[in-house]
This record gives sequence, structure tokens and C-alpha cells, in this order.
Amino acid sequence: MSDRGRDALAALGRLLDGPGLLHEPEDLAPYLNEPRGRFHGRALAVARPESTEQLAAIVRCCSEHELAMVPQGGRTGLVGGASPINGELIISLERMRRLRSIDPIDTSLVVEAGMPLARVRQIAAEHGLRYPVSLASEGTATIGGTLATNAGGNLTIRYGNTRAQVLGLEAVLPDGRVFSELSPLRKDNSGYDLKQLLIGSEGTLGIITAACLRLAPAPRQGVTAMLATHSLDQGLALLRQLRAELGETLSACEFMPRLALDFVLADQPRARDPFDRVHPWYLVVQVESALAGDWLKPALLNVLESALQGGRIDDAVLAESEQAALDFWALREGISRAQARGGVSLKHDISVPVPRIPDFMQAVLSELERAVPGIRPCVFGHLGDGNLHFNLSQPEGLSGEDFRAREADCNRIVFDQVHAVGGSIAAEHGVGQLRREELARGQARKLELMARVKSALDPAGLMNPGKLMPVRP
Amino acid sequence: MSDRGRDALAALGRLLDGPGLLHEPEDLAPYLNEPRGRFHGRALAVARPESTEQLAAIVRCCSEHELAMVPQGGRTGLVGGASPINGELIISLERMRRLRSIDPIDTSLVVEAGMPLARVRQIAAEHGLRYPVSLASEGTATIGGTLATNAGGNLTIRYGNTRAQVLGLEAVLPDGRVFSELSPLRKDNSGYDLKQLLIGSEGTLGIITAACLRLAPAPRQGVTAMLATHSLDQGLALLRQLRAELGETLSACEFMPRLALDFVLADQPRARDPFDRVHPWYLVVQVESALAGDWLKPALLNVLESALQGGRIDDAVLAESEQAALDFWALREGISRAQARGGVSLKHDISVPVPRIPDFMQAVLSELERAVPGIRPCVFGHLGDGNLHFNLSQPEGLSGEDFRAREADCNRIVFDQVHAVGGSIAAEHGVGQLRREELARGQARKLELMARVKSALDPAGLMNPGKLMPVRP
Repeated sequence: MSDRGRDALAALGRLLDGPGLLHEPEDLAPYLNEPRGRFHGRALAVARPESTEQLAAIVRCCSEHELAMVPQGGRTGLVGGASPINGELIISLERMRRLRSIDPIDTSLVVEAGMPLARVRQIAAEHGLRYPVSLASEGTATIGGTLATNAGGNLTIRYGNTRAQVLGLEAVLPDGRVFSELSPLRKDNSGYDLKQLLIGSEGTLGIITAACLRLAPAPRQGVTAMLATHSLDQGLALLRQLRAELGETLSACEFMPRLALDFVLADQPRARDPFDRVHPWYLVVQVESALAGDWLKPALLNVLESALQGGRIDDAVLAESEQAALDFWALREGISRAQARGGVSLKHDISVPVPRIPDFMQAVLSELERAVPGIRPCVFGHLGDGNLHFNLSQPEGLSGEDFRAREADCNRIVFDQVHAVGGSIAAEHGVGQLRREELARGQARKLELMARVKSALDPAGLMNPGKLMPVRP
Repeated sequence: MSDRGRDALAALGRLLDGPGLLHEPEDLAPYLNEPRGRFHGRALAVARPESTEQLAAIVRCCSEHELAMVPQGGRTGLVGGASPINGELIISLERMRRLRSIDPIDTSLVVEAGMPLARVRQIAAEHGLRYPVSLASEGTATIGGTLATNAGGNLTIRYGNTRAQVLGLEAVLPDGRVFSELSPLRKDNSGYDLKQLLIGSEGTLGIITAACLRLAPAPRQGVTAMLATHSLDQGLALLRQLRAELGETLSACEFMPRLALDFVLADQPRARDPFDRVHPWYLVVQVESALAGDWLKPALLNVLESALQGGRIDDAVLAESEQAALDFWALREGISRAQARGGVSLKHDISVPVPRIPDFMQAVLSELERAVPGIRPCVFGHLGDGNLHFNLSQPEGLSGEDFRAREADCNRIVFDQVHAVGGSIAAEHGVGQLRREELARGQARKLELMARVKSALDPAGLMNPGKLMPVRP
């Protein structure tokens, strides 16, 4: 440990009690874990503040000692955004998880950054409301982490991403001052909307400590259906009809290929194929309304009948119970885990303009097949919002090691096409360390603007260095 | 004209044809008009580019000649944001008004900044879609202006403000480079979301040239109702019930006091009071669904019957025809104009947290009555989103001039209470020149952050100086 590190640690020790500051290796270990085991940096220590004021004091102390900081939520991120690199101070928000207030007239609540996403959803549900961001990792992922990464999920087509839920924000800025705009205002045009910069900035501009979030009414009617199609063009034609005829009630429109279903059926002993025949593609569609009534199911049936007759789908099954709906969703949500059965998987979290999905898929997949014959695409995700989890399983007959050696080539093929159609190389997981170089390669002009904003708010570069942007020399 | 002005004008003349550059006083005059006649600056000339590339060349030219610029849309803004101050170049987007593309699968379109808002709404309607921002001035207001000011309107409670509609943005930055992120992506977390800075920045960070906007499905069922209540507490209780029982179908919840209705009835010969009795407050409620069916009207009737029985409203009338609905809306939309019948009106476009509206109103109005006995509050607006048009008509018996002399006192009373409840002094109209000093007074810390961002993107301070922020010395 450097002298500067030792001095900083001593100063932090004066601000925090025992459980507030961890520095023994065995105490640090859990904070260095991340889901895919790709990032192996080291940290000076872990600070665990209990309040915004305490965090502000920590940040001022780091600023004085020129000690870099890495904010941490639930550590469910997949791009290394919450992992330290080279001796930073990890700042975990896990002890700041209070509900500060909830207002049923305004349908909004104020929660601290360390509260798990699932808990926010549960509190909302207890008030007949819904916090409409839902992720596979919601039991562990924290609100602060979902804000810092502008998390997406399955309900984006209806409710937007995390950004769309944020009415107000509290954060500690790099100089230790508190940015406090927690009001639930729906209309406020008094100057630049600076909270928008903090949302999605992956901790590089400040540390989010609390947020005022809007809540939606909870659904009182809902139907989930699993559909079979033979092409993504068909899927888009169906999406168009769903949007036109079921309007505001369309909550999700997900897609998966047969290969993904095969993986999940092999992985989950109790899972079963909803159809008698094998189909190339499957969609999970969910419609919901906050109005009581019994008109939504017939309306969906109507659309599906016409889609069957019009050749936009090949088959359809409606979930006849809540359990059946959960079973459909388990097929979709089980893919990530089940895909390990296919050996090594090269994963890309990308988005493209929705109408271009079929052409994009065809172009990339044929190029990939030429580059790595037998490569097995397991591309699934959010048809309605264009977010493709562009995962590639190793060819049968090629070793995992040999396949991994082709990762850079495959990435280049995928990302070049993403740039060509005006897509995003980081749709819902963010950039972190994993896509930092690719962002700099593909969007140099944007990086230059980002660097100007970063310098304006964090001139010393102490906030989460090496994430989003290259480390400054 | 200074030598520098003359040189800049000559250089601009080489970039633009005759109608592209106006500098005769009689040609400039219309561009100096603004709705309330409060701002009387002077301009060097008016540039009217026909393309983004041409605009970029103009901006580079201004940058080289250190000539400040004022972007202009439809000039319907009320805060002087589009008015020149001291010899700037006005840049009117009026010749950039093309529809670049519309995609019915993705339900989005790309339009240039100079297209009037009403035209965007019309194009959407022709495709069975809705652009869900609606303003009284929409025939003249341009998309670029609504983006630069993050315009609100009557449908915010359901669809959000202009910011919420923006998928992609194109703009010319202060150095003349083009910021081009026009993709319709629903999920894109590849770095800071810089377009959010441009939205609502009132032309101080760049000139918006085009936008990709999301469209909503057009409604196929809709009901408008006019309700009478005796207090705003009642109104909020009704709002809560509407939200809980009619969920996603609630499109608008507006309020107005009896004084406003009196003004409108006097101003519009064909207007009539929908009720037999006089009531202290009126609400206009609109519910809509994109689903075909006949369940929405009974659902609203159900809520209103229970609200009548529960004492949340005193009376209710449903619009039985489209014309009747328009008539209700005409009462609400007619207030601004009709209020001139009450003499001088001191206007404040503020917002407060919705649940605090009644207490806020009581506190401010009693203080105002003490300061200016007989002052006539004509406070109306958007109950559902907390945006109050806090207009104060002159007392009977006090001259307009004497009332106007009290403007600073009244402003201080209103704005101090706004700050006290965490409200906004500029809810949907923006800051411009009108509220610049008040913003600096009430939110010095925010101004300091804004100035850092401004310096990072517009170091020479050439973009719309004197708007939002004080002019730099």
C-alpha cells in the first residue's frame, strides 16, 4: 500500500465506524466478485456509508487525498462497471436502503440507492401500484445501480427504461457536494436537466444516493401468450398489429429461437414445450390493463385469430392461469443460464432499429457463419424495443478455447454491422470496462464530447476511472 | 453596425442566397416580435438555412467571427428565449420543415426542427398514430422550439413532456460540428445521453435541427367530462380515484376557478356554463384508449357516480358529442386570452408537488391578499401534473399601473413559496430572459453546475447569450 493510500485510509477511519470501512482481504473479497468472473482488479478498501452526509464526507476525503472511487450497488452488472481496477476505494451503498417516503396521491416514492429493485417493486405493489422496471437480477440489483446504468428489461416497450421512471435525484458529486433534486415534479424547465447526465453515467460523474420514482397503476387484467412463427419478419408484422389494435396495453413482446428453447428444455427438468411441433421462432407477448374488466383477453384472442389467418403467426397458446404465464416467462428468462449447456458463448448486448432486425440478423449471421463455420447463434431478447442479446454458442466440433480465440473477430463482425444500421453496442447493460474500447473505436466524436462533460464535473477524474472512457494518461 | 458585424455579414452573404439572409429593418421586424411584447432587443440579421449542412457552415462562420446566435422556431415562447438582446444573428429554422421519414412498424418519425407541432400531429394522425404533445400554440410553435424548451401541455399526465417523446436528435453544436444521433433506438446505454442536455437547454448549447420522435397509438375510444368541486382537496381525491380505477386511460386532468370561467363566458359569446349552479372549481377530465370498444364510458361513469356519492365532486357533465368535448376544452383553453378582461395580469408558470397544491395555494393566496388587498387570483392549469398557471388579476379599484408596480413583491411571495415546497419557478414555459434572475437567486448551486456544462460545450458563450443564465462579464 502506498503512503497516500495509508493516509487516505487513516482519514477514512476517522469518518467511519468498524463495519463502515473494510480493509482486510477476506472482507474485501465479496466486493471483488462479479457475475461472469471476467474482471480481476484490486481495491484499497470498501467504504459503507449509512447516510448521504456520511458519503459526502467520504467523497470530500477522497478528493483531498486524490483517491479514486468505485460506487457499487448489487454487483449484478455484466460489464465490469462496479469492479475496481487499480487500488480504488469501493463505495458500497448497501447500508443506504431506506424508503424515505411514498405518496399514493402523487403515485411516487423516494428510496435510497441501496434498496434492491425487487423491494421497490414490492412496496409499490403493497400500494396497488407498480414500479415498472423488471429484471432477472432484481432481487439483488439495487435501485442505485439500475439508475447509474439506466437499466432496461422486459417492460421497456410500454414503460420505457429506468430513466423514464425518474422524477428526482440525489447524488454526491465528485467534489463532495450534494446534488439534491428529489422533488416529484412532472414539469420543471428551470435550466439544464442535470440529473439526466447522472442517469446512465455508470458512476463516472457522481454517486447516486436516492431517487424519486414515479409509479404506475398496478394491472387488474393481464394475459400472457406464447406464439410460434417461422420468421422475424412475421414477428414484426405481428408486433405492428399488436401495437395498432391493443395500443397502450402491450407490456412485453419478447422473442427466442428454437435453439434457446432446446437449451432451456434441457436445463429445466420441469419445463415443457408449449407446442406439439417444432418452430423456428417463439414470441412471448403480454398485455395488461389497470382497468378492471374482462375485455382484454377477447381483444388479444381477436388479434391472434386474425394473425393466424393472415399468416403472421403459425401457432399460439394462451396462459390459462397465473402459473402458466410464469411458466412461459421461465422459458424466456431461463435462456442465459441454460445457454451454458451449449459450451462457450460470446455475448453481445446490442440494439438496432426495430424494422431493421431481420435484415441485420441475416447480414451478421451469414458473415459469422463464413468466419466461424457451424457457429450457433442463440439470439433472443426484446423484439418490441430492438434489444437483441446477440449470443453465439460454440460450434459443435470446435473446442471452447479455439472458439474464444475468435472472439475479437466475431465482435468486429457484430459491432461493424451495429454501427452500420445506427444501432447501439451497449443497449441495456452499459459499457463499463467490457465495451470501453469498442465505444472509443466506433464513436470517437461522442467520446470527445463525453470527455468534455466529464472534465467539467470531475476535473480530477476520481469517479470510477476506466469505465465508459479510457483512463486519462 | 460594428466592423466585426459588417465582416461577419459579408461572410454570411457568401454562404446564403437572398432569402437566406435578411438584414433590412423591415425584413427583420417580424423576427423581433414576441407574444407579450415584453422584449425589445436588436439583431444583426436573420439567417434562414435550408439544411443542416448549411446551418453548420453558418455556425462555423459565427464562431470564427465571434458572433452570438439566437435560434428561433415559431416565436410562441413567453419568456423571451428566442428574442435577440444586443445585435446577435437570429437563426430561423423556418425553412427546415421536412418530414424525413416515418416508420409505422417502429411507430416513429424523423422531422426537421422547423416543422410546426400541429403538422407533426397531423402526419401522425394520418398513420393512425398520435404525437402526444398538444399546446394552444401548436399551429405556430415548431418541433425545434418545443424540444429546446421541453414543452409540456395538457397530456403530460399520460405521455410525459416533449423530452419523453424524443428517441433521437440532430443538432449543430457551438463549434459548427453536427451532433447526429437520429436512430430510433429504445435502448442505448453507450455512454452519456448527451441529447438530454440539448433538450430543454433553450438554444444555449446548440441548435436542434431534427428529431426522431416516438408516436403513440391513436385513441379509438374517448370521453371528456366537466366536473364541479368546492375545493382542490376534493379535486385531488378525485384524481387519486381516477388514477387508481382508470389507470393508463387518464389523458388529462385540468382545473380552473370560477373567476376563470366568468372571464371566458364574458369573452366567448357562444360559450355557456355547463352547470346550472355556480361552483368554486371546475375540472376537465379526459380518458382515452387506443383499443376499440365501449367499456370506457361506463368505467368513467362508474367512477363519477362513486365520486358524487363520496363527496369528491359536486356535479358532473359528460360530453355527449365530439363538439361538446371541444366546447369543454374551449372553456379551459380560452382562459389566457379571456383573462385580459380582468385588466393587468401578473403571470407565473410554476409547478409544485401535486399533493401540496391545496396548502401551497392557501399559503400564497393569503399572503398575496395581505400584500395587495383585493387581488384576484385566476390560478388554473394542470392538476394532474402540478403545473399551475399562477395568474393574478388586478384588484377592482386599483389601476393597472399601480398593480404592475407591485409585480416584484408578488413575484417574491409566489417564488419564495415555490422554493419552500420544492417546486419549479419555470414549469413548462422555460426560463429565457424572464426568469433568469429568479433562477440565479433561488438556485445558485444549480447555476454554477450549469455554467460548467455550458463552458464545456460552448466555451466562447456564443449560443443564445443572456438566456437561462446571466451573460458572462
